[in-house]
Amino acid sequence: MLEPLAHIGRDPATGGYLRDAWSAADMELREWFAGEAARRGLDLREDRNGNLWAWWGDPSRRPGVVTGSHLDSVRQGGAYDGPLGVVSAFAALDLLRARGFDPPVPLGVACFTDEEGARFGVPCMGSRLLTGVLDPGRALGLSDDEGDTLADVLTRAGREPRGLGRDDETLATVGTFVELHVEQGRGLVTEERPVGVARAIWPHGRWRFDFRGRADHAGTTRLADRDDPMLPFARMVLAAREAAVRRGVVATVGKVRVSPGNANAVPGLVSAWLDARGADERAVRALVAELTELAAPAELAGQGGSGVSVGEESWTPVVDFDEALRDRLAGVVGRAEGGAASTVAGGVAGGDTPAPILPTGAGHDAGILATAGIPSAMLFVRNPTGVSHSPDEHAERADCEAGVGALADVLEDLCR
Amino acid sequence: MLEPLAHIGRDPATGGYLRDAWSAADMELREWFAGEAARRGLDLREDRNGNLWAWWGDPSRRPGVVTGSHLDSVRQGGAYDGPLGVVSAFAALDLLRARGFDPPVPLGVACFTDEEGARFGVPCMGSRLLTGVLDPGRALGLSDDEGDTLADVLTRAGREPRGLGRDDETLATVGTFVELHVEQGRGLVTEERPVGVARAIWPHGRWRFDFRGRADHAGTTRLADRDDPMLPFARMVLAAREAAVRRGVVATVGKVRVSPGNANAVPGLVSAWLDARGADERAVRALVAELTELAAPAELAGQGGSGVSVGEESWTPVVDFDEALRDRLAGVVGRAEGGAASTVAGGVAGGDTPAPILPTGAGHDAGILATAGIPSAMLFVRNPTGVSHSPDEHAERADCEAGVGALADVLEDLCR
Repeated sequence: MLEPLAHIGRDPATGGYLRDAWSAADMELREWFAGEAARRGLDLREDRNGNLWAWWGDPSRRPGVVTGSHLDSVRQGGAYDGPLGVVSAFAALDLLRARGFDPPVPLGVACFTDEEGARFGVPCMGSRLLTGVLDPGRALGLSDDEGDTLADVLTRAGREPRGLGRDDETLATVGTFVELHVEQGRGLVTEERPVGVARAIWPHGRWRFDFRGRADHAGTTRLADRDDPMLPFARMVLAAREAAVRRGVVATVGKVRVSPGNANAVPGLVSAWLDARGADERAVRALVAELTELAAPAELAGQGGSGVSVGEESWTPVVDFDEALRDRLAGVVGRAEGGAASTVAGGVAGGDTPAPILPTGAGHDAGILATAGIPSAMLFVRNPTGVSHSPDEHAERADCEAGVGALADVLEDLCR
Repeated sequence: MLEPLAHIGRDPATGGYLRDAWSAADMELREWFAGEAARRGLDLREDRNGNLWAWWGDPSRRPGVVTGSHLDSVRQGGAYDGPLGVVSAFAALDLLRARGFDPPVPLGVACFTDEEGARFGVPCMGSRLLTGVLDPGRALGLSDDEGDTLADVLTRAGREPRGLGRDDETLATVGTFVELHVEQGRGLVTEERPVGVARAIWPHGRWRFDFRGRADHAGTTRLADRDDPMLPFARMVLAAREAAVRRGVVATVGKVRVSPGNANAVPGLVSAWLDARGADERAVRALVAELTELAAPAELAGQGGSGVSVGEESWTPVVDFDEALRDRLAGVVGRAEGGAASTVAGGVAGGDTPAPILPTGAGHDAGILATAGIPSAMLFVRNPTGVSHSPDEHAERADCEAGVGALADVLEDLCR
């Protein structure tokens, strides 16, 4: 199903994907989306924040049922995270048409911009801007590794940076949102089911630690004379793991920038990004506070010179998906599987057992929309290894097809 | 004195220099060198390894006396490391001409290519290739951060990669080599003298540690299921400092590369460069062996999968500069300073006291030539803070002028 996209932004050396928002690869993916919309006679719209919408029916008359996901990737990411939800959305529409279904409400396919935040550091940028939880001025000032701001990048892509910000007109078109996504864990493997429904998204955030020291020569500067920020950075990495284990949350340092970054120079600055998540918001907050205090003891604050500063780059409180909606979806998916199983193998999957309902540690655009008050839900497709954000990310073809079938059933049900 | 070069490759945000070998900035510096040679009627040659030589007199008839240094910089480096030696070389020739000196042997000004190794990781590339201690095949295969090999970069610069390697014809032109350099420490501040002479270069090397793990999702992967290479990397950083203190050497981790480098992904690979130096070669070697054993215990070697590999990128044994030559230089410099001091202030500097003789932890092209058997020496110019490889690197104008005077005296003496 993902074959037409397989070559776009793929690193031939690793097999991983490099699909930064607004990169050449992303532009090619957006073109592909426009082509798929046109091929089906859907009405394509790009909103003021760069999100794409392909409509079957006119959403200006009444709010629609929307499904979709994103096409950008983390760096060296896999093929499924994002694209599976978009490809499945188009495939579900095709299935509904083949069934002769005539939707009584508009049906939309969405592609959100910059979900991963690989380029500018803030995930779910498109949905955060759309719903107004991210200040457009802050977003425009964010810069990528080359020092280009989002404003520069948008201008170069022919977009109007001043258009960014909360977009009530577009939000009004979305009556319900369903995002299909490859599972990023092994919950469905344990349950032995191809498709599940999301219960909640853990509270999660991202913090930038800037450890400042003094750049100097690696050969001629005595150890006693050094102010080397690599040392407190290394202590933070180890403390983060220890504290995460103790507090029952997860913490990751996956991005580091060293300046000047010469093998023969003591660094002047080490910037490190901490990602922390967990079921208990207080535990996540306490971990970050503990690491901040360790790195930059409060009693030393404001003394200037070298030291550490910690900034919160993003924070997403817990998202509990609409309970009635998720139970409705779990029922629809369970009935469809039961039916399919009865037909194929005499009801092995347990007939009408609702689909499993699972929590997740990953952020999604569906979570941003849910927080903004739009009834939202997610379907997960089984991932045999649970590996994600890696070229090894995978889902079996049969499970992907089960996902499309489940999504079509869910859309048909929601249109009633 | 460095004013004509001040704008080339300067980062306006930091004031630091970005003068990677063969970059646009480096090409501009090479053009400047060619212009200075032409302005003085010197004969310009570029050898097969990209090093530049400007000759006063014909070195094909008899070996010459050569002075010079390099024009490339570490990333975010200072204005003096390298360029001071090249600018002072031209200025010393001017001084000799103004004195009416007619050199009985050829006098040369040299500019060595890629002394810092900022781009391809191997320092003193030009002099190592010239003297044959670096294998040209290995050099051509080294790649920069963009994945371009030295072979690619040379070809693009219009050079012939197949020309690289030991160059006896060029080596035969260098009878004696003197490199003037800003001091990278505060030895001359302590001595209260503007110019000193090098005694030895510490043995030093660079090792690359590749910590391999498994890239995964930062939110959905349980801590217990992770193989996160950031943790053993952090332990190595802390162990390196502890072992360096214990063994009386210096150790630095100044360059780190994290892959994929996403804030929301557990890394799959952390590459870190260790720079280690000290007066005692055995202590340096023991430190590296200790860190290698800590990172990759011998009993786990060859078990495949995730783990650590350690590669030696460069190693330079101790360089003791030619004792007779350095004492001769110290005498010449001391006498000149004594004379100048008597004239100006009645002999405050102590008359004919020889210039101080200092060790250094920094590698230099003069050390590579000395190891290859060419009588070589170095002059250091006082650095008030000792800071180097940083935009804060500095030398006072009067000390730089004293350096030029000392270099002219030394060249005149060596021509006899």
